[in-house]
Amino acid sequence: MFYHKKRLQYFTKPENPDPIYAKQLQELIGGPFGEMSVMMQYLFQGWNCRGPAKYKDMMLDIGTEEIGHVEMLANLIAHLVDKAPPDVQEKAALDPIVEGVMGGMKAEEIIMASMNPKHAIFSGGGATPTDSVGYPWNGNYIVASGNLMADFYANVQAEAQGRLQAVRLYEMSTDPGVKDTLSYMIARDTMHQNQWLAAIEELKADGLEDLPVPSKFPRELEKQDASYQFWNLSEGTESQEGRWAKGTSPDGKGEFEYLENPEPQGPQGEAPTPNPKLYSTMNK
Amino acid sequence: MFYHKKRLQYFTKPENPDPIYAKQLQELIGGPFGEMSVMMQYLFQGWNCRGPAKYKDMMLDIGTEEIGHVEMLANLIAHLVDKAPPDVQEKAALDPIVEGVMGGMKAEEIIMASMNPKHAIFSGGGATPTDSVGYPWNGNYIVASGNLMADFYANVQAEAQGRLQAVRLYEMSTDPGVKDTLSYMIARDTMHQNQWLAAIEELKADGLEDLPVPSKFPRELEKQDASYQFWNLSEGTESQEGRWAKGTSPDGKGEFEYLENPEPQGPQGEAPTPNPKLYSTMNK
Amino acid sequence: MFYHKKRLQYFTKPENPDPIYAKQLQELIGGPFGEMSVMMQYLFQGWNCRGPAKYKDMMLDIGTEEIGHVEMLANLIAHLVDKAPPDVQEKAALDPIVEGVMGGMKAEEIIMASMNPKHAIFSGGGATPTDSVGYPWNGNYIVASGNLMADFYANVQAEAQGRLQAVRLYEMSTDPGVKDTLSYMIARDTMHQNQWLAAIEELKADGLEDLPVPSKFPRELEKQDASYQFWNLSEGTESQEGRWAKGTSPDGKGEFEYLENPEPQGPQGEAPTPNPKLYSTMNK
Amino acid sequence: MFYHKKRLQYFTKPENPDPIYAKQLQELIGGPFGEMSVMMQYLFQGWNCRGPAKYKDMMLDIGTEEIGHVEMLANLIAHLVDKAPPDVQEKAALDPIVEGVMGGMKAEEIIMASMNPKHAIFSGGGATPTDSVGYPWNGNYIVASGNLMADFYANVQAEAQGRLQAVRLYEMSTDPGVKDTLSYMIARDTMHQNQWLAAIEELKADGLEDLPVPSKFPRELEKQDASYQFWNLSEGTESQEGRWAKGTSPDGKGEFEYLENPEPQGPQGEAPTPNPKLYSTMNK
Amino acid sequence: MFYHKKRLQYFTKPENPDPIYAKQLQELIGGPFGEMSVMMQYLFQGWNCRGPAKYKDMMLDIGTEEIGHVEMLANLIAHLVDKAPPDVQEKAALDPIVEGVMGGMKAEEIIMASMNPKHAIFSGGGATPTDSVGYPWNGNYIVASGNLMADFYANVQAEAQGRLQAVRLYEMSTDPGVKDTLSYMIARDTMHQNQWLAAIEELKADGLEDLPVPSKFPRELEKQDASYQFWNLSEGTESQEGRWAKGTSPDGKGEFEYLENPEPQGPQGEAPTPNPKLYSTMNK
Amino acid sequence: MFYHKKRLQYFTKPENPDPIYAKQLQELIGGPFGEMSVMMQYLFQGWNCRGPAKYKDMMLDIGTEEIGHVEMLANLIAHLVDKAPPDVQEKAALDPIVEGVMGGMKAEEIIMASMNPKHAIFSGGGATPTDSVGYPWNGNYIVASGNLMADFYANVQAEAQGRLQAVRLYEMSTDPGVKDTLSYMIARDTMHQNQWLAAIEELKADGLEDLPVPSKFPRELEKQDASYQFWNLSEGTESQEGRWAKGTSPDGKGEFEYLENPEPQGPQGEAPTPNPKLYSTMNK
Repeated sequence: MFYHKKRLQYFTKPENPDPIYAKQLQELIGGPFGEMSVMMQYLFQGWNCRGPAKYKDMMLDIGTEEIGHVEMLANLIAHLVDKAPPDVQEKAALDPIVEGVMGGMKAEEIIMASMNPKHAIFSGGGATPTDSVGYPWNGNYIVASGNLMADFYANVQAEAQGRLQAVRLYEMSTDPGVKDTLSYMIARDTMHQNQWLAAIEELKADGLEDLPVPSKFPRELEKQDASYQFWNLSEGTESQEGRWAKGTSPDGKGEFEYLENPEPQGPQGEAPTPNPKLYSTMNK
Repeated sequence: MFYHKKRLQYFTKPENPDPIYAKQLQELIGGPFGEMSVMMQYLFQGWNCRGPAKYKDMMLDIGTEEIGHVEMLANLIAHLVDKAPPDVQEKAALDPIVEGVMGGMKAEEIIMASMNPKHAIFSGGGATPTDSVGYPWNGNYIVASGNLMADFYANVQAEAQGRLQAVRLYEMSTDPGVKDTLSYMIARDTMHQNQWLAAIEELKADGLEDLPVPSKFPRELEKQDASYQFWNLSEGTESQEGRWAKGTSPDGKGEFEYLENPEPQGPQGEAPTPNPKLYSTMNK
Repeated sequence: MFYHKKRLQYFTKPENPDPIYAKQLQELIGGPFGEMSVMMQYLFQGWNCRGPAKYKDMMLDIGTEEIGHVEMLANLIAHLVDKAPPDVQEKAALDPIVEGVMGGMKAEEIIMASMNPKHAIFSGGGATPTDSVGYPWNGNYIVASGNLMADFYANVQAEAQGRLQAVRLYEMSTDPGVKDTLSYMIARDTMHQNQWLAAIEELKADGLEDLPVPSKFPRELEKQDASYQFWNLSEGTESQEGRWAKGTSPDGKGEFEYLENPEPQGPQGEAPTPNPKLYSTMNK
Repeated sequence: MFYHKKRLQYFTKPENPDPIYAKQLQELIGGPFGEMSVMMQYLFQGWNCRGPAKYKDMMLDIGTEEIGHVEMLANLIAHLVDKAPPDVQEKAALDPIVEGVMGGMKAEEIIMASMNPKHAIFSGGGATPTDSVGYPWNGNYIVASGNLMADFYANVQAEAQGRLQAVRLYEMSTDPGVKDTLSYMIARDTMHQNQWLAAIEELKADGLEDLPVPSKFPRELEKQDASYQFWNLSEGTESQEGRWAKGTSPDGKGEFEYLENPEPQGPQGEAPTPNPKLYSTMNK
Repeated sequence: MFYHKKRLQYFTKPENPDPIYAKQLQELIGGPFGEMSVMMQYLFQGWNCRGPAKYKDMMLDIGTEEIGHVEMLANLIAHLVDKAPPDVQEKAALDPIVEGVMGGMKAEEIIMASMNPKHAIFSGGGATPTDSVGYPWNGNYIVASGNLMADFYANVQAEAQGRLQAVRLYEMSTDPGVKDTLSYMIARDTMHQNQWLAAIEELKADGLEDLPVPSKFPRELEKQDASYQFWNLSEGTESQEGRWAKGTSPDGKGEFEYLENPEPQGPQGEAPTPNPKLYSTMNK
Repeated sequence: MFYHKKRLQYFTKPENPDPIYAKQLQELIGGPFGEMSVMMQYLFQGWNCRGPAKYKDMMLDIGTEEIGHVEMLANLIAHLVDKAPPDVQEKAALDPIVEGVMGGMKAEEIIMASMNPKHAIFSGGGATPTDSVGYPWNGNYIVASGNLMADFYANVQAEAQGRLQAVRLYEMSTDPGVKDTLSYMIARDTMHQNQWLAAIEELKADGLEDLPVPSKFPRELEKQDASYQFWNLSEGTESQEGRWAKGTSPDGKGEFEYLENPEPQGPQGEAPTPNPKLYSTMNK
């Protein structure tokens, strides 16, 4: 069960409204790698977790923190959308098609034209659970597989992409309040990348899971001839120069092999004739 | 530009049709972590890559291989759906509501009831670019961020989840042809997990990128006090027992700190009054 | 079965084209609470209705009217997109990155940049069944539950949100034709809010349904201790000051109770160990 | 900011696993009117709220409670999916197409065929943020409009539909644990329907908003002739018998009028000729 | 503006309920090529049409007819879902996991397990605007391009696929009422395929549009060397035997040419180095 | 199985970056009728094809070519997004709300405001598998029905709409590199329209399929009275003037008949009373 405190985890108010930046910032709320994703991903992983208590507890700690990150960003966006849309009563004097050729549009008109229309029409100045192009967050963005090693790699990536996106938005703003708030979120992303990398170490140390995932599947049941072959299917052999083409594999269980001119090993593709009641097209 | 050979990379024909298993197997084609995802993810990463040639070439090698994996699975599904839907001409003798109480439904009726209806009605016995519940694959499943470290972690996870799903489907089948074909795909997933882990090593060795992602963002611009703090927000302190709560962080740049009773550091959440032309509800 | 007349229910032609406003206006066609939603919602409710004829007839009356509202808006958008995209033959003289620093872009370039690209590329100047960010209308926006009380509340809300959005768009335009057409739609939304509120009264008067929905479910089957408790889960007790925290409940069947410091009543969350064939991570 | 306690708000363990019921129960987690919807809807409404503190606090109280409802259901589903998929090692003895004609399939095969395949393949025995057909929850399900009256009607409806769905699932189960847990959720839905109805009363009592929504838009700006007209567009006049066709309107500001044979009031629909550069088809 | 009559265009009541067939039949309502698609496609094409009146009128005739087809199918599904879900009060006697091994499940349990759960839980026995796997209809299924030749080919295809799907469902049913109703819809699909083919002839006869679409784009602006070349990119030359590889092209403006061993004509793919503020990975 | 060559099928580099045009051009990659659609459509049709080898080979030839078209466009977009977002360090001097009234925004600010934010934040300067409004490509865009005649009409339309869209984008650009690359793609669309029209001829010549689709369904099983009737359901009889209202039908099997005043032929729509356990609203 959950509880809420009214103070935000961290927050500095923007100096100025900026509805266009608000549109861009939505990527951090409702994009594939926004805070809604990590919040839901860690909560579902925690709820579904059957492993030792330290893992379940850790996942619920961070999942709970992420709810508060969505809250921080929702507050940030409400401040940035403030006063939008600007008043357009004087717009009538300007026929945008005919007159516009002779001069630039007014800044407030351009802002109205470029902001997310939903921030005015749909939410009346509030954040929405959508991304920077207005596409709604959805449940297929997240994964909670039951296999913690697979999930922890998903979490490292989510935090890496999340920090990358926060950094890009940091560079796209000049507002001290926005930058200060983002600098806190970037720091938390640093922590969380490290946290999941540490959790991968812990899983190995505890002997619960290893690479390749899932590590307990009997290796003799896979076609082991193909388990360490690199297939060179794009013209040229520059790919031969990398770590992935030679030496011991990172899982420590094989040696990489480079197939320079690989050929198919299966039969020609074909599909059997379907039930005639389906009225597909067939031979005479 | 691309070329096609008619033989499949690997393939063993199923011994028997099994339309219900065909429905389940669609997860490996069009699910979030199916072959369409890795195919499109590696191709877009390769096309957008600006790094040294060995990386771009490697990504296009594997992206090209994955097109062929979608092809293998499409052939597998066509064989499994074969002869479905079974003939229902004798079904009229059985009122499923009234008569059914006295006996089981016929097996072919249950198969028709449980298979993906689209495999009959929509595709006439062929595979579709959808997952095991019929949800269509979509472009938001993939990521090509321009930051190779972030992307390679995404790729490790995609292959880990992909192998996990293939292994689960392997266990759910008893058909020798299906199992043999899957055992090849599982082996390729072993290779590809290793390949991306090796690529992470290579990026570090080349000095192109490190952790935390993105590694070139100036650390002094983030709120470094918060960069290695674990916030205990779920009741109990089992989470303190893990690697993520103490010692040097995996990026080697900090020491983990455990906040047992963390308090919010920001002001109370609030949102400014919007433009009155939006007719939101406000104070009197 | 349906028939069509060529005259529109109401319409005043816009004085000027305005492709940016056309983009915004799409919210009223294909947004979650646009005319496509109310049209499909009332038609499906009407088709599925088993209640007295006056309800079924009423729902089909208004559902049929709403088809005509989509038609009005489609005509409005075609007029607003007229002549777009503006001719760009002279754009070549302006390198937007380099030269632009010295002056504003031309108005027609800004319009092209800000309009919905689909209005040019995809539909060639016509309306589309999408919202103001180009997201397509979909069938999960609507509800026809078979329970008329639940549905009529959905309909009140759809008309309330619909009128709110139309009013916001009214304020965002200065074109007399647009404003006149919208003032008619706003009036119809007034009617339709009232109509559904009246239908709620009628359901109660007819003894068909009451609150809470569904009213015929035996109350003794629910955990009645919890049926009128307010759980204070966000810090502070301002929520105690509202009507929802004291007095008789609006359904007339209970007294509100305010739990200032509520505690969980269930056991600790846990999940059973899954089938080992799923290769989830588990204890040693 | 948020905190978590490990005990669930309420919970009784199911007596038996039932993966098919788990599939159906997903509607209450990730359907349009499941717990994820009310959780996100109330949180966003609370975060965006600018009204008196009692409203903002109340919305965050209930939004926080709903996170815990998702948690309860996730736990319930993990128990119901337990042991699935059943072992299929003996399935090989049965050719489902050929042999099946002579006898029923085994129960465990039917369960595997009918359960949500994602519960095995994708989540390894855990709940997913999707509905009963596997469609992912998405952000367009929720509304936070800034107008509290519009939003409170949305909330009444969400709780009405939510209780209706919980009641239907209650009737579809015979497991005492499931029924007991649902009977608690049904009680909370009773409370929450009442809570939002009380909040509507409070908004009116506080003079913040009234009907029709938005109540502060100047009535003289709408086409008032049409504000209380019922248009009879479906053959027959049964719709004339209802409360919506006569008497004073529920908002108290008009008298209903019944148009038995309404005619269009606008001009014929037409669309202007688009820019020739769009290569649409036009007159010779 | 639209009007409704209460009688259906055509309808024969099913003899028996069949909730599983109801699930399958949803493909004809809300699938990509179901009646909702043709209804919305023809209406939007008609509303956006600027051509001679006979075209606009014809498109609105058929679009209006298709609303009635959705209505017919909604009625059909309501009859098929009748009485579902069957009563499960006796199910308690059967532990599906343990006991089920010894005998088949009861028919009504299998029906409940296989029907669309939404038909019970969400819609209470009514049709929904979704397809046979429960995926909601959406606005990106339809096209109204402004170019009538492009649109009429879309319409031929929609009717061809629509008739194919109706025929498959006809073969999958043994209920005389269902078959009779479908036989009417199949006939209308015959008409509509012919209607759009005739409209293509008419466009050519009127000189409004021809092939290739769009026919008025100056041919000298395209790279005409490539306009009639067949590129053989899949191993083997069976494709050389078809009409598409030799002779005059169907548009009468070129001669097909077969490139047996085609080579790329462009430079090597590359992407420029992005702005360093984006923190992508780049060369040392 | 597939192979890749590093040179592009055709390509001319843009002279200047233009991130706004890059946004618009995404329609050709990930829109409903972009290159991803034709690529996946032809590949799935080819993989599922059971007809004579010349058809299967031809479909795989063109499907393979289309992978290369996505590649060309991805390269084009990477060049167009180059250097975006422009540096905004000087933006601080301009309060967009207050100062903007007195002058235009700078060109680079407008570009940042109007470009697809994902091209900066999400992909770091690379193309994405989405359309011009950022909506992701999805698998329900494509069809592979098993009936080649139905599919070939889908393919004609996809190429017609594709060429129309490429032509519109050609007219919207003034960059010689962009125009040259598009002129090649337009030429290929000319070829592919012709190719599918030729394939339709071939199917007829081979006696495999004819009109109406599916041609082998026994005509006596459809309600033949209705197979050639035109129903005039939109006021006025302009639709009587077209080829579709008189003469022999294009399939050569009937005569068109024009019903000027058509009446419904079925009974009144009704729905049976559902199971009381569903708690729908019913008569007293």
